[in-house]
Amino acid sequence: MNYPNGIKKTFKISNSNRGMNLEQNLNDTNIFYRNNNIAVIYKKPTPITINKVDYNSRKDAVIKEAHFIIPSTTDYNGVYNGTYIDFEAKETRKNYFPLANIHNHQIEHLKKIKQCGGIGFIIVRFTVTNENYLLEIGKLENFLNNNKRKSIPKEYFKKEGYLIKLGYNPYLDYLKIVDLIKESEK
Amino acid sequence: MNYPNGIKKTFKISNSNRGMNLEQNLNDTNIFYRNNNIAVIYKKPTPITINKVDYNSRKDAVIKEAHFIIPSTTDYNGVYNGTYIDFEAKETRKNYFPLANIHNHQIEHLKKIKQCGGIGFIIVRFTVTNENYLLEIGKLENFLNNNKRKSIPKEYFKKEGYLIKLGYNPYLDYLKIVDLIKESEK
Repeated sequence: MNYPNGIKKTFKISNSNRGMNLEQNLNDTNIFYRNNNIAVIYKKPTPITINKVDYNSRKDAVIKEAHFIIPSTTDYNGVYNGTYIDFEAKETRKNYFPLANIHNHQIEHLKKIKQCGGIGFIIVRFTVTNENYLLEIGKLENFLNNNKRKSIPKEYFKKEGYLIKLGYNPYLDYLKIVDLIKESEK
Repeated sequence: MNYPNGIKKTFKISNSNRGMNLEQNLNDTNIFYRNNNIAVIYKKPTPITINKVDYNSRKDAVIKEAHFIIPSTTDYNGVYNGTYIDFEAKETRKNYFPLANIHNHQIEHLKKIKQCGGIGFIIVRFTVTNENYLLEIGKLENFLNNNKRKSIPKEYFKKEGYLIKLGYNPYLDYLKIVDLIKESEK
């Protein structure tokens, strides 16, 4: 993995995380949260439909044919300080976030979460610079309502979202941002 | 499906639900909640590990070998009035609930949910009489701490849990019980 000059130093603290993708970083972060009784947040299993299962014994069932289905919700959800948390995480190699990377019904889902009193957002990693932004669903909605573009420029994340500071453990302490969002909603 | 004499009348309101299993009833109830902006609660996909996938095209991926894995969490979660909701649902033909029907780590998961400010519970259907009880995790813990039995008698559900009244739509309005639990916690 190559990083542009000048930002290499930033990664000294996170050697072990270097080369890991966003999903692995989030899973590790969520394990940290669970082990320290901070929050219980999991990635949901991949949604599939199962067509054929072979049973040798009840314990050794093997799925022989199944299909991926489009998820109707997001990948991650759970509870933090009594608050329901729900988000989708995506990587992009561009310096903008292509909206094709997120399904329309996932955006609708996040809107519903907000209506029901939960906190919904997306986490987007710009892989070239390893910047990770959290954008609350309300800000994502604002963008969609006021733009016809098919992507969100990084500048919008900088302005309306929150940069997640990289740490040692947890690597991506996104719940700190959730604290800020809750604070701002008061 | 045969019901004992005398309770047949109870089911008049729910002809369309007769013969449906607990999972179907809960899914329908959750659809009702979502469509009416009451709550956003879903059943999670079945957790599997995928070993082999055939790609004809990216869209037509077929899973050719996969295995079921033991779930580390419960089946259902979501948000209701800002509160995180998490539960497992089980049916039993006996007049007791065999504890073998619920994994230990699912119980541990529900305990953590409570610690983090969420509301965790199990819903158990006694299929012979179609009685559906909601038992909050704290009450389940109490039972486990004070008993060496391998099952929970229905009497315990009657005493410490809540009977979910059957309705037309939604059929199993379990969030009414969640209201009672939240009220009792104040």
